[in-house]
Amino acid sequence: MTNADPFLAQLERARVAAKSLATVTTAQKNAALEAIAAALESSVPEIVAENAKDLALGAQNGIGDGLLDRLRLDETRLFGLAAAVRTVIALPDPVGEVLRGSTLANGIRINQVRVPFGVVGAIYEARPNVTIDIAALALKSGNGAVLRGGTAAENSNRVLVNLIQRALSSVGLDGDAVQTIDEFGREGASRLMRARGYIDVLIPRGSAGLISTVVQESTVPVIETGSGIVHVFVDATADEEMAAAIVTNSKTHRPSVCNAAETLLVHRDAAARMLPRLARELQESGVALSGDGAARASLDGIAEADDETWATEHLALEMGIRVVDSLDEAIAHIARYSTHHTESIVTQDYANAERFLAEVDSAVVMVNTSTRFTDGGEFGFGAEVGISTQKLHARGPMGLAELTSTKWLVRGGGQIR
Amino acid sequence: MTNADPFLAQLERARVAAKSLATVTTAQKNAALEAIAAALESSVPEIVAENAKDLALGAQNGIGDGLLDRLRLDETRLFGLAAAVRTVIALPDPVGEVLRGSTLANGIRINQVRVPFGVVGAIYEARPNVTIDIAALALKSGNGAVLRGGTAAENSNRVLVNLIQRALSSVGLDGDAVQTIDEFGREGASRLMRARGYIDVLIPRGSAGLISTVVQESTVPVIETGSGIVHVFVDATADEEMAAAIVTNSKTHRPSVCNAAETLLVHRDAAARMLPRLARELQESGVALSGDGAARASLDGIAEADDETWATEHLALEMGIRVVDSLDEAIAHIARYSTHHTESIVTQDYANAERFLAEVDSAVVMVNTSTRFTDGGEFGFGAEVGISTQKLHARGPMGLAELTSTKWLVRGGGQIR
Repeated sequence: MTNADPFLAQLERARVAAKSLATVTTAQKNAALEAIAAALESSVPEIVAENAKDLALGAQNGIGDGLLDRLRLDETRLFGLAAAVRTVIALPDPVGEVLRGSTLANGIRINQVRVPFGVVGAIYEARPNVTIDIAALALKSGNGAVLRGGTAAENSNRVLVNLIQRALSSVGLDGDAVQTIDEFGREGASRLMRARGYIDVLIPRGSAGLISTVVQESTVPVIETGSGIVHVFVDATADEEMAAAIVTNSKTHRPSVCNAAETLLVHRDAAARMLPRLARELQESGVALSGDGAARASLDGIAEADDETWATEHLALEMGIRVVDSLDEAIAHIARYSTHHTESIVTQDYANAERFLAEVDSAVVMVNTSTRFTDGGEFGFGAEVGISTQKLHARGPMGLAELTSTKWLVRGGGQIR
Repeated sequence: MTNADPFLAQLERARVAAKSLATVTTAQKNAALEAIAAALESSVPEIVAENAKDLALGAQNGIGDGLLDRLRLDETRLFGLAAAVRTVIALPDPVGEVLRGSTLANGIRINQVRVPFGVVGAIYEARPNVTIDIAALALKSGNGAVLRGGTAAENSNRVLVNLIQRALSSVGLDGDAVQTIDEFGREGASRLMRARGYIDVLIPRGSAGLISTVVQESTVPVIETGSGIVHVFVDATADEEMAAAIVTNSKTHRPSVCNAAETLLVHRDAAARMLPRLARELQESGVALSGDGAARASLDGIAEADDETWATEHLALEMGIRVVDSLDEAIAHIARYSTHHTESIVTQDYANAERFLAEVDSAVVMVNTSTRFTDGGEFGFGAEVGISTQKLHARGPMGLAELTSTKWLVRGGGQIR
């Protein structure tokens, strides 16, 4: 049966190809990934030419320098992508890993093993590198991938998906395992969100607006990634050097990413001791500060922070500062404003450290480290699909294991109930 | 801040209470569960009196004997529920279990630990026993629970939830952790499905229609449970005695539940050898058979099976029989019609057994056992929230562990990037 609807027919081809991928060996999958890496290196001129069309269109539409930069592929970046694919080759294959197993009293043996999801859907914006990242991770974990990379990167994504499909075919695997649906436009994205039975899990990557739309509209199970209103709490007993280093690093190391800190909470005692220094170091790194009454009383000329300050993911060199009277007040502020991504306490107090770890309900809760360590690479996962801020299935940095489901294998000898 | 909307105010109370539950000790949670068990035993007259109102209304509305029986609570059943709660007391507490941990090259120590979801929502129909089951499992795993048990059981659910709330208070825990929203009617169910930020995961239990509605309408993450178009495949080499026992047990042991078999696939060679006997034993157990052309040719007077037969979860003493030419044809039939719950092969052939286990994409895949073993109790989980047929988060029988999320605890000594 071929589906008369071209969109569903394409999803069906991905599903059939994914089924064959589920049982191929790790060696075969690694060979496909190596073919992709090699093709990225040998196809620089073609890819750059297609990418130039997207860049020209983007410039014409005035999409801004930041977006244009994200959109750009050049030789250095393509070789970087090839290197990233080879990192995925080096990772252990999650498929077949036995998670639990036992022999029941009646002699039946049960084993819970990791299996691929089937087909992973991804919706993202103007980031052709994500096309390679997601495809590589999906393939290594035995999944097909249906990608909606957005109109702004349509030419770049098309050439990259063609390259992946040819690489798969070149090692005897089904090229249909990776598909782009960019040609179906916005309608394609909407249909992808409702393609139950074709898509097993959908991962949105991008702006808070994009993620929220996918979460609201999708009937396919979604893994919500990304948005981070991240807090650093400098406790009464914090070491001044350590606090200064962690606050500045968390805010300024790479302000545009989700694990960058947005709000600084400072215990009243620590504020008296070191807030001017913390503020000065942030300002010297170019951070525009705002603060509550107590913060403004000890810092000259910073703007007034309000409810919107605490509820905003700036993704820029801006930071709100609030002085709190206690650990409880810090935890309460975080419970109210956090997106449950990452929070860090700087403290020398054992009991406060343990309470913060236990009571803050975020994907990653830290003591005495920069929030920038919430990252699949830093955690040793080798590659990252994104950072889940939901509680179902995956929470925090997602690696290959998070792109798998499980099944139970039950072996008996004629048992009945 | 109290919420002016009474529905959201109630959900907010559950959320606040759940927060305090997340960090109480196992001993405290077990004390609360024992108080619930004791109250079930000591409150039989009140509960039976409230249940009688639901039964009377049900009879008046002509809801049918099966439903009325499910709705009924009597002394035996209430003592059975108390015993089930004590089983949950005996289970290990999943909260705090360390799933992964390592020390990074920079000295940072990371640990992934199980934490409660927060608030579990449940939508079910006319089954007051589920009120106790879900509440007990939610509490043991440190979660709050918001229950929508349906108008038909409204009086029974109200008295049970009151009992749970009093039991929680009696041991010093916040009674608001368990709530019923039956009084808000259908509107309450709809709002529960969209209560992101209040409800962390929603579990529908009941008819295929109910589950499908929740999956389609919910913006809260859902764990889909239940529906089972379950297959037994009798391979060419199957042992006749074993095949007869497994087929009959899978179909007739308890035909109304999701792990009961609905379709019998028989290899052509096995059909010639034993189909008449398999059919006779099924018919002697009261099963109405239908079959494809080949099955009907070897069995007298059975009805004709069609596409609808294969696609129906009968939940009754009805079974479709199809003769297939090969293992591939059996696997293809299952891929097309299965709800991916449970499938079992009966075979003496090692390679076919392993291929069936590898290639059938269902939550539980079996060799030489009755499909009735797909069950949390049988798997040693002690209690069961339901059987997940989705691939995200949980797949197959769900116990306490499946009612938890995880978080990463990161302990450092001032590290920055």
